[in-house]
Amino acid sequence: MKRSFIREILEHTSSDTISFAGGLPDASLFPTMELQRATQTALADNTIWQYSTSTGYAPLKALIAQMYSDKGFPTTADEILITSGSQQGLDIICRYHSGTDITIESPSYLGALNIFKLNNMNMYSVHLEEDGIELEKFNESLKKSKLAYLIPDFQNPSGTCYSEKHREEITNILGASNTLLIEDAPYSELYFDKPYQSISQALPKQSYHLGSFSKVLAPALRIGWIRADKALLSPLIAYKEAMDLHTSSITQAIAYEYLKDTEQFREHLETLRSAYKEKMLYFANALDEILSSFEYEHPKGGMFIYGRFEGVDTMLLVQKCLEKGVVFVPGIEFGGKADEIRFNFTHSSPSQIREGLERIKSVLDA
Amino acid sequence: MKRSFIREILEHTSSDTISFAGGLPDASLFPTMELQRATQTALADNTIWQYSTSTGYAPLKALIAQMYSDKGFPTTADEILITSGSQQGLDIICRYHSGTDITIESPSYLGALNIFKLNNMNMYSVHLEEDGIELEKFNESLKKSKLAYLIPDFQNPSGTCYSEKHREEITNILGASNTLLIEDAPYSELYFDKPYQSISQALPKQSYHLGSFSKVLAPALRIGWIRADKALLSPLIAYKEAMDLHTSSITQAIAYEYLKDTEQFREHLETLRSAYKEKMLYFANALDEILSSFEYEHPKGGMFIYGRFEGVDTMLLVQKCLEKGVVFVPGIEFGGKADEIRFNFTHSSPSQIREGLERIKSVLDA
Repeated sequence: MKRSFIREILEHTSSDTISFAGGLPDASLFPTMELQRATQTALADNTIWQYSTSTGYAPLKALIAQMYSDKGFPTTADEILITSGSQQGLDIICRYHSGTDITIESPSYLGALNIFKLNNMNMYSVHLEEDGIELEKFNESLKKSKLAYLIPDFQNPSGTCYSEKHREEITNILGASNTLLIEDAPYSELYFDKPYQSISQALPKQSYHLGSFSKVLAPALRIGWIRADKALLSPLIAYKEAMDLHTSSITQAIAYEYLKDTEQFREHLETLRSAYKEKMLYFANALDEILSSFEYEHPKGGMFIYGRFEGVDTMLLVQKCLEKGVVFVPGIEFGGKADEIRFNFTHSSPSQIREGLERIKSVLDA
Repeated sequence: MKRSFIREILEHTSSDTISFAGGLPDASLFPTMELQRATQTALADNTIWQYSTSTGYAPLKALIAQMYSDKGFPTTADEILITSGSQQGLDIICRYHSGTDITIESPSYLGALNIFKLNNMNMYSVHLEEDGIELEKFNESLKKSKLAYLIPDFQNPSGTCYSEKHREEITNILGASNTLLIEDAPYSELYFDKPYQSISQALPKQSYHLGSFSKVLAPALRIGWIRADKALLSPLIAYKEAMDLHTSSITQAIAYEYLKDTEQFREHLETLRSAYKEKMLYFANALDEILSSFEYEHPKGGMFIYGRFEGVDTMLLVQKCLEKGVVFVPGIEFGGKADEIRFNFTHSSPSQIREGLERIKSVLDA
């Protein structure tokens, strides 16, 4: 099996390489003081160091269920399975459905593609258009695929956000089929102007909804979850248990103690949204100024700007850029086109953004 | 897939059930104050909340490598892969070797059997004798098995410890074959009188050595590791990455900050060893007094007393005992005999031990 380009790069770049490659949040926005306080409270209970249950830390499951219910998606704690990041959540589902055919967006999340390969799943790629996955081909693919993997909100890598109308049409198509939806939603709370309703909410008995605290709180917690109807969730528990017994109850308790102050979390999300929107605009303006031949659309949320340098082999480009101390991910890594690029705009500082784009320009001009 | 008997029980017993079932450490021996201090130090670095590398937190890998080297098993940091508990370590190895035939001890660790099933591995059970796995059958099994899974130190569930002579013979047999050893060593540091040298140390290029901090520090950290030669370890990294990106760097940093005070850890291990030896003797004396028909040998370390009530169906017995508020694991769950039982002696307090055994007696006498 091949390692991820992004994670290989993460391990091999030097400290002065400017990275637009990984999906790294802006570390300066982590609520570190509040997380430290939450940690102190979590560790005040000595029993927290012991083995725990496979389905997850009960107070955290209840709190996540409440978050869904508050959004109009009625959910109980036993419809939540805590996982070691949503990466593991997806792997658990796919391991259970091992060997099944699956419909995916093209391009799609690299880490998901690796999981599908690992679980011997046949992938049907359907082109992702401006409003969402191409409907006719999607409908057609479901004759074979018993699973569909979609990232409707500010997709990784493309930044695409499904329109409301498109969500309805997807719901109708899936509802008329026997295909189960896997909706991956790590960026849903990172909208710039307005939130979007999950497709799963309209298909509660036919969907796995994947959530994560990596993008909205801190990746190092390694806490994600699967939200699914009990009938769908129950058979997954034995897989979770066989795979790592349970997710760390230390980090689960830290997350819980932080999140139970719902007002604190709400304010943090607002801070993130406005800071990321500002950063996206900064990156976009710098692109327009420094690399004006780059074609792209402003994303409506999330962490990525996706576009293309017409006719440029971006895999060759990134190899030259690596020598100049700047990296990004070529679209081809995600199943995209040879001249496409994904830029992460959240991780770097404003001065790094300008400097990084200047370095790319110097390679293109050479 | 079936869930583990033990973990189902963990989730369904009431708070006044006395449990000799799980492999739970004595929570009163967790160095909670020291771990809290380690946590404070770990979190003083704000960058710890960010995504990290798939192979593990570099200072922790270096420290674990040093622990091996100090025992005369020369190891470098890049021969260590940090995993989310050694449960995940075993799963990573088995996923890479998916579909391979594997030789196992009978009885063996339940969580391992689940992993082997999950990875479509054909299991060859070889009887575990007083000194270790039966040699002739073991040798024979290697004609087919390209992997052998052994727990030489204070085995779970049997408590068996391989003699030095037996280790040598296993080394010779494996050395003459192409079979890779998976040596699971979660209890190795929990010896009562003397440590034993790992078999892997004599077969450094032909073995995966699995370690864990769950039994010697705290299970909730969910930190284990695979120690293997680089050629064996390298292909596993892509699997680790696909499965959960990386293990929490929060808990890795906590473990590192605690462990870097090597004297503190050494003293803690000595405390654990003497407390567990005392507890084992207490449990054994109570067994002899209250349930004198139970046949068993004193273990030389670890967390379990394994034995039998001749002719008693222990699966029926545990169901009745559950109603009386005491649980243990029937040997048959591990591939053992119908009249065998595994008792965990570390988790319960002395008064719970006596009360639990009295409850079993009342069921047997009824």
